[in-house]
Amino acid sequence: MKLIIINGPNLNLLGKREPEIYGSTTFEEYFGELKQKFSTIQLDYFQSNIEGEIINKLHEVGFSYDGIILNAAAYTHTSVGIGDAVKGISTPVVEVHISNVHSREDFRHVSYIAGNAKGVISGFGLNSYVLAIQSFI
Amino acid sequence: MKLIIINGPNLNLLGKREPEIYGSTTFEEYFGELKQKFSTIQLDYFQSNIEGEIINKLHEVGFSYDGIILNAAAYTHTSVGIGDAVKGISTPVVEVHISNVHSREDFRHVSYIAGNAKGVISGFGLNSYVLAIQSFI
Amino acid sequence: MKLIIINGPNLNLLGKREPEIYGSTTFEEYFGELKQKFSTIQLDYFQSNIEGEIINKLHEVGFSYDGIILNAAAYTHTSVGIGDAVKGISTPVVEVHISNVHSREDFRHVSYIAGNAKGVISGFGLNSYVLAIQSFI
Amino acid sequence: MKLIIINGPNLNLLGKREPEIYGSTTFEEYFGELKQKFSTIQLDYFQSNIEGEIINKLHEVGFSYDGIILNAAAYTHTSVGIGDAVKGISTPVVEVHISNVHSREDFRHVSYIAGNAKGVISGFGLNSYVLAIQSFI
Amino acid sequence: MKLIIINGPNLNLLGKREPEIYGSTTFEEYFGELKQKFSTIQLDYFQSNIEGEIINKLHEVGFSYDGIILNAAAYTHTSVGIGDAVKGISTPVVEVHISNVHSREDFRHVSYIAGNAKGVISGFGLNSYVLAIQSFI
Amino acid sequence: MKLIIINGPNLNLLGKREPEIYGSTTFEEYFGELKQKFSTIQLDYFQSNIEGEIINKLHEVGFSYDGIILNAAAYTHTSVGIGDAVKGISTPVVEVHISNVHSREDFRHVSYIAGNAKGVISGFGLNSYVLAIQSFI
Amino acid sequence: MKLIIINGPNLNLLGKREPEIYGSTTFEEYFGELKQKFSTIQLDYFQSNIEGEIINKLHEVGFSYDGIILNAAAYTHTSVGIGDAVKGISTPVVEVHISNVHSREDFRHVSYIAGNAKGVISGFGLNSYVLAIQSFI
Amino acid sequence: MKLIIINGPNLNLLGKREPEIYGSTTFEEYFGELKQKFSTIQLDYFQSNIEGEIINKLHEVGFSYDGIILNAAAYTHTSVGIGDAVKGISTPVVEVHISNVHSREDFRHVSYIAGNAKGVISGFGLNSYVLAIQSFI
Amino acid sequence: MKLIIINGPNLNLLGKREPEIYGSTTFEEYFGELKQKFSTIQLDYFQSNIEGEIINKLHEVGFSYDGIILNAAAYTHTSVGIGDAVKGISTPVVEVHISNVHSREDFRHVSYIAGNAKGVISGFGLNSYVLAIQSFI
Amino acid sequence: MKLIIINGPNLNLLGKREPEIYGSTTFEEYFGELKQKFSTIQLDYFQSNIEGEIINKLHEVGFSYDGIILNAAAYTHTSVGIGDAVKGISTPVVEVHISNVHSREDFRHVSYIAGNAKGVISGFGLNSYVLAIQSFI
Amino acid sequence: MKLIIINGPNLNLLGKREPEIYGSTTFEEYFGELKQKFSTIQLDYFQSNIEGEIINKLHEVGFSYDGIILNAAAYTHTSVGIGDAVKGISTPVVEVHISNVHSREDFRHVSYIAGNAKGVISGFGLNSYVLAIQSFI
Amino acid sequence: MKLIIINGPNLNLLGKREPEIYGSTTFEEYFGELKQKFSTIQLDYFQSNIEGEIINKLHEVGFSYDGIILNAAAYTHTSVGIGDAVKGISTPVVEVHISNVHSREDFRHVSYIAGNAKGVISGFGLNSYVLAIQSFI
Repeated sequence: MKLIIINGPNLNLLGKREPEIYGSTTFEEYFGELKQKFSTIQLDYFQSNIEGEIINKLHEVGFSYDGIILNAAAYTHTSVGIGDAVKGISTPVVEVHISNVHSREDFRHVSYIAGNAKGVISGFGLNSYVLAIQSFI
Repeated sequence: MKLIIINGPNLNLLGKREPEIYGSTTFEEYFGELKQKFSTIQLDYFQSNIEGEIINKLHEVGFSYDGIILNAAAYTHTSVGIGDAVKGISTPVVEVHISNVHSREDFRHVSYIAGNAKGVISGFGLNSYVLAIQSFI
Repeated sequence: MKLIIINGPNLNLLGKREPEIYGSTTFEEYFGELKQKFSTIQLDYFQSNIEGEIINKLHEVGFSYDGIILNAAAYTHTSVGIGDAVKGISTPVVEVHISNVHSREDFRHVSYIAGNAKGVISGFGLNSYVLAIQSFI
Repeated sequence: MKLIIINGPNLNLLGKREPEIYGSTTFEEYFGELKQKFSTIQLDYFQSNIEGEIINKLHEVGFSYDGIILNAAAYTHTSVGIGDAVKGISTPVVEVHISNVHSREDFRHVSYIAGNAKGVISGFGLNSYVLAIQSFI
Repeated sequence: MKLIIINGPNLNLLGKREPEIYGSTTFEEYFGELKQKFSTIQLDYFQSNIEGEIINKLHEVGFSYDGIILNAAAYTHTSVGIGDAVKGISTPVVEVHISNVHSREDFRHVSYIAGNAKGVISGFGLNSYVLAIQSFI
Repeated sequence: MKLIIINGPNLNLLGKREPEIYGSTTFEEYFGELKQKFSTIQLDYFQSNIEGEIINKLHEVGFSYDGIILNAAAYTHTSVGIGDAVKGISTPVVEVHISNVHSREDFRHVSYIAGNAKGVISGFGLNSYVLAIQSFI
Repeated sequence: MKLIIINGPNLNLLGKREPEIYGSTTFEEYFGELKQKFSTIQLDYFQSNIEGEIINKLHEVGFSYDGIILNAAAYTHTSVGIGDAVKGISTPVVEVHISNVHSREDFRHVSYIAGNAKGVISGFGLNSYVLAIQSFI
Repeated sequence: MKLIIINGPNLNLLGKREPEIYGSTTFEEYFGELKQKFSTIQLDYFQSNIEGEIINKLHEVGFSYDGIILNAAAYTHTSVGIGDAVKGISTPVVEVHISNVHSREDFRHVSYIAGNAKGVISGFGLNSYVLAIQSFI
Repeated sequence: MKLIIINGPNLNLLGKREPEIYGSTTFEEYFGELKQKFSTIQLDYFQSNIEGEIINKLHEVGFSYDGIILNAAAYTHTSVGIGDAVKGISTPVVEVHISNVHSREDFRHVSYIAGNAKGVISGFGLNSYVLAIQSFI
Repeated sequence: MKLIIINGPNLNLLGKREPEIYGSTTFEEYFGELKQKFSTIQLDYFQSNIEGEIINKLHEVGFSYDGIILNAAAYTHTSVGIGDAVKGISTPVVEVHISNVHSREDFRHVSYIAGNAKGVISGFGLNSYVLAIQSFI
Repeated sequence: MKLIIINGPNLNLLGKREPEIYGSTTFEEYFGELKQKFSTIQLDYFQSNIEGEIINKLHEVGFSYDGIILNAAAYTHTSVGIGDAVKGISTPVVEVHISNVHSREDFRHVSYIAGNAKGVISGFGLNSYVLAIQSFI
Repeated sequence: MKLIIINGPNLNLLGKREPEIYGSTTFEEYFGELKQKFSTIQLDYFQSNIEGEIINKLHEVGFSYDGIILNAAAYTHTSVGIGDAVKGISTPVVEVHISNVHSREDFRHVSYIAGNAKGVISGFGLNSYVLAIQSFI
């Protein structure tokens, strides 16, 4: 089983941004833990702040991987293009969010991706990624 | 660990409604499977088509259980009262949906509960309940 | 042929509310007249002010009756749950209204039921029920 | 008793448009059946694709007929002028629709006529006309 | 000086519709009085319930008359086509209304004509026409 | 003089929910104090989390009591049915709120009840009930 | 006959603002011409940039004058208070505008005054005042 | 205890406007009765039709009085400035309305003041002022 | 191959309206050029300012022609009826516009026809018609 | 060079309102510092809580000063009249705000002044005034 | 003559995505056919999933080419930046779409590009590109 | 002191786009002048048309520079991602615009950045950059 986590804009700030609040663990470090926890599956990781590179990656993996775990962050709420990419590929996509987007600004209640995704998991902190992986097993 | 699944309106039609499409398994039967799968935890179940009875049940369990898995179905999109109940109790609530609400009518994209919930899991079929239970473990 | 009239909130006030305007005939009395008028068919009646009890009744009769005449009154405009119930059962439902909802407040121009119903009859006073019964014959 | 059916735009395509789906009966043929079925009343028929001709006809019959059965079709949703005509005449008007307008596009949920009509009957196929005639008897 | 009054839908009902309220004077009779009152100018009159005939008339007179007094009635609020005609001709147009459109339904507060007209006069009863004629002198 | 306080959903959590913030006095205890303070009038109390039971109670008392003090809580903002009940009964209703609804979420700025009520009192904490009782004296 | 012209904010700039476009005639000078033109009636004039002073003046003249010609300028579109004053007094008010408000910004298409006024005259330049005076004669 | 009643635009017309309906008591006369009724407290009164003078008065009394009873009338629905003043001072403000604003036009359902006020009392006629005074005692 | 150009309201003003800007070529003259340019196909032409006559013409040619080139002008943005006609016939329709509707008023950005048409060509001046003909070849 | 600072409603509370947060410096004191800092230019100051007095002042200085620094505070978001005044005068106006209006309520994101101003400076605390003065040098 | 086709996000999936429906021809292959068909003109091609690279390419070719054929796909509906680029360059741009965007989701009915383009061609499948090239010849 | 100017899409066209209107100075040349004018501070410059590269640059400089001057141009109005980046870094950001965005299209009145920025300066032409630099000194 081959899965990939694709993270969108600003998620590379984890561990660097206000570490006294969010902790000093980077996503790369957390990803190491995930790989250990799910050692029997191939788990890859990609992050970009560029909308089109996320589309490129979805195209690249979207016909051969068994599942995509996509946290498009800010692009979730504005990108018709990523939504179209999710519809255009054959690999199922699970949309995840670390925070509870419904308790934040109104414009974060809209998702151009969710309607084309297999499912949505949001609000469980970094544990959202674990649940998303479990949804594919 | 004590968890409870609370199901809202029309979910009692599962297994009865268009069985050639949705199958003939009722939620009660599925709940039996869930209890077997998670035999080490106490797992309870409640269903009502009445908004206020769902509020009553949330009050009843909301200060002693470890977690509530709430599929408020249609009330998700209209009930300020259930949303207030979720905020008023101390037990964390996970909102679940069987179908992908984002690929359905616009009025189903609104949730009065999600903002007060711990997290949301939607679109994984009956497996959404499994993921919700795992989110508490 | 088995039909049932299901009335929603506040319709039990007929005959009691401002009798100098609306007359002093209760719906129960009117229902007696209807049964006489349509003596060859089985005609039942149910009223509740509780949204969920209307859903319960729809489930109960919705797989065995030949037709349901539903005046959901105020819930017509707010209840996604009753709309889902109408979609979930197999018996066809006709939505009726005594008054002309289109000449009243804007929020009464919305119906969460009509889209799932077989048809809508509104504005003919109590005669709306007669027309609805005739639509099933 | 003198009644008239007034049909609006595109209803003259019945029987011609996709006959494999909608059947090959034209409205004129159906009107012949209606006249037979209600042989004791004078039943007239008018159709036009021109908004203003429908207004003209409403003016012509609106002070002498006992009832008007109006299926304004597309003009239902856009014509303030026909709505004003219905308010300006003394003959009561019943608005009818063949299809269930509430299960179609959003702009078909608006009616500029219904608020001035005696009542609305929609969704019963051609049988909507029968019910409308019965509402006048 | 050549002026023309162009009246839109339902204004031909004046004198016929609820005469106990609106009086029994038809617009034609009133127009006779207007011609006497302004005997030194050529004053013509046209009425139609058909949107496109109003456009036709605007084209016909719109390059030779000195002024057009247009009461488009219901079409005021829905007709982009009449608005375009007013913009396309060279004769100045004054929009008039008998009633005060601002104290009626919201959809009557919109005018697709006013922005292209020379001016607007509304709410003065039939006297609105007198004021409009005076605006051209 | 006979008055009744009708409380809607989640108000039964008072004294139980976050007692370090809201105090540990339940509404029942507070109601005891109110009865003492206004010992010359008959003061009754009813609470339900079920929308339809609130309608039932309004019907039951709405033709014999001198006044109703209604805190419909969350249902204030969503219940056309309770609003209709308030309009349908003859006893005057005063709408009360403990908190200042105008400094909370936008959806709490809407009331389906206020337009049919005698008046509204909101924001004075539990003292809102005292003012409402005084409004009837 | 006693009439008064009440001008709102910025109209005192006439003759001063861009005189090469708007001319160098002030409204006071124009008012002198108006008084001469209508020498048989008492014609008064008031201008203020202060919303409340316009309300004060409406109160002062609103029970003794025969007519008020009100160009509330910018306050037309924002002042509920002037609208209420127009409704509260007994003298009829005619709303006038120099420019065609419908060919300007969207927020100028709204009037809080027109619904309570006797009529509206807009777009005829300074001649709008002449027509308004004529409407009272 | 020092309280002040601040009344906004058009409230000075009480007793003058349609006395056959509203009575011929002016607010000043009513204020005299209020002072007698609450003779143990210092009760002051201020009225202005000018938005900015109401702000001035709020500043003047807002750091020394014990309470302000503010009926901003039309400015309630349009004045961000009065709302800011209420937030900026330290004396608590109670918003009152004589009529039931919720049964009037939509634009009267908005309040820029209520969110910053201690509470709101509306719909009790002149008695709203009595209740507001009692809320401070 | 049989094609027809159907032009809507005000397009008959071409060549007459502001000839110094738009030129003095009428559409009839331009149509002559088109026929010469595409001499191997049967090319017909129809223009009307009346919405319903456009519907009539669509019905007349819509089951025998190979293609319809429809410039509904103002009716594009308001006519549900023409949109329904386009859907109801079997001949494919191409929607054309001379000007770029997207750089004009907001209400011209809406099309009730485009969703039912084969395609849309807009903004190329009279050349839009050439491209539309080429799309059928 | 002659500049003037015009401050709108509630800005006179600076130094008085919550001094433990906002400090106890009044704007007058701060203005003294500004005059010292920019001693080579004539710098004037005006404050009013009355919308119309701000318009009056803009007219008074708007044809002779070299620049106006306008903090219209709450009136920024509601005053079409001040916006019109800014457009009507010849002196350029710079709109300033002390706080960041974009991180406050939605209704503060609208400005009726900015579109007519030379520029906008907001969010720099009292330093916004310094930057505005520099923009004129 | 030098033309370039610029394709936006996900158009590189043509031939790869659901080939049983869309066919297995890639856009590159189709572009080869186009070059043959229009062998007398220089025809170039560029595709990117990255919004900013499309802007870069528009800048690069936008002052030397004779025409640009732009299918911005999803970015059509969200990219103010591409719209600004089209306005900023001197080469005319034709917007094309393969599918009929008006029969798809509402958010695809908006174009930030069309208002700045020379024209729009949509709905003709790959033939839209042929028509666009012909529009430049 | 280390500052950086970050420019968004299409700002690289300065000096190239319509030089007869905007002049032929490129931003690079202007930046040279700025460095000379503020020779005591380190002033850097970055431009990209790619949204994600702007985010990358904000991350790169956002924890070490003393200030960022951000003209995100078109992305100002659409990029939640840049707004999140501004919130996530520790260096304060000043949003600048060359033109007055409030006198342009409605969609340019929205900013996803301003709420997270230290302040906004817009409308002063290239001088906006000077003022922004001065705001940091």
